[in-house]
Amino acid sequence: MSTIKRKLISFEGGEGSGKSTQIPLLENYLRDRGENVLSLREPGHTYIGEKIRQLLQHDVHASDMFPETELLLYEASRAQLVRERILPALAEGTWVICDRFFDSTTAYQGAARKLPLEDVQWLNHFTVQSCIPVLTFFFDLPPNIGQERAQRRSSRPYDRIENESLNFFQAVREGYRRLATDEARRFITIDAQRDPESIAQIIRKSVHEHFFS
Amino acid sequence: MSTIKRKLISFEGGEGSGKSTQIPLLENYLRDRGENVLSLREPGHTYIGEKIRQLLQHDVHASDMFPETELLLYEASRAQLVRERILPALAEGTWVICDRFFDSTTAYQGAARKLPLEDVQWLNHFTVQSCIPVLTFFFDLPPNIGQERAQRRSSRPYDRIENESLNFFQAVREGYRRLATDEARRFITIDAQRDPESIAQIIRKSVHEHFFS
Repeated sequence: MSTIKRKLISFEGGEGSGKSTQIPLLENYLRDRGENVLSLREPGHTYIGEKIRQLLQHDVHASDMFPETELLLYEASRAQLVRERILPALAEGTWVICDRFFDSTTAYQGAARKLPLEDVQWLNHFTVQSCIPVLTFFFDLPPNIGQERAQRRSSRPYDRIENESLNFFQAVREGYRRLATDEARRFITIDAQRDPESIAQIIRKSVHEHFFS
Repeated sequence: MSTIKRKLISFEGGEGSGKSTQIPLLENYLRDRGENVLSLREPGHTYIGEKIRQLLQHDVHASDMFPETELLLYEASRAQLVRERILPALAEGTWVICDRFFDSTTAYQGAARKLPLEDVQWLNHFTVQSCIPVLTFFFDLPPNIGQERAQRRSSRPYDRIENESLNFFQAVREGYRRLATDEARRFITIDAQRDPESIAQIIRKSVHEHFFS
């Protein structure tokens, strides 16, 4: 994969942290400036990825999935997404916004499922190679508040991951926070309890500084 | 995973090389000695693995699968198979015979798809850890002969892997041959053009020497 000027931004954080409110606002901001934008969600967004998403999140018979299997399936979906959708879009100058990307794997399968962090990072690197976001917005929120918000918003039953305990989501949060410290140049931590309009302003300001100034 | 005395044997080789003729003969030989035997085929043999097998081999919409995706899906199926089926069987003293195991990935995704060999080996190790066969029978056959045999035997259409070119299967064979040299203690190369009964004798003799003498 050749090096390309990457207009690649990822949004990270637990359920109910407000990512899906903010992504369309950033899309609009970019489109108003005449930019092409592709918004993607992990896992999924390719034919193969949607099949994997189904198995990972919604297949009731897959409840005995081992952590290593889960990790490899997320990476398989991502390997296809990067090569089939993200790299071609970036190559033609389109902005790509990812609702979750490889940092989710570090936080969920590494920090929370407790798979060795160096193995998770090796796999992340194998899968994305040099396709790394320039900016990653981490929506930080106490997990109990996120769960309340997610419950209020949706009446569908929890999927396999959402069914995990509060301890699990606490470990996810700590995983993200460590990443935000270790990769401070790329990460922008957002207090997800702030009001949506001031969060949108922080995001626009960061994107402006990183890409347009 | 703890270290266990492993009654684990794998069969490797291209299509039409005669693995599926020999595996039941070895099963019978072991059962006649009062042993419990579990025969498994890769990918598949778990609920999750069968879903992955479908996507890897029989889903006509998955034709644009990238080599990295393919590799990660085989490893995901294997990670589940090792933990759900193989390790529990070995732990209770059952023999496990695998029709294909991680050497297939080295030969097909490494040598033939040309993914970096050290990456394939890293992934194989991550997936199986110490669950390594004591004996691996490699059925060596010129690929054109294997294809003729496989065609005669079956009227079903080729799957996604079987559809590859003769060059691809030549590279698979060379990948296996390199493994047989590099891992000479574990590999036994069988000239798959010999008659089935003399092949069965070689296999029984090797198993006897490795396990019963």
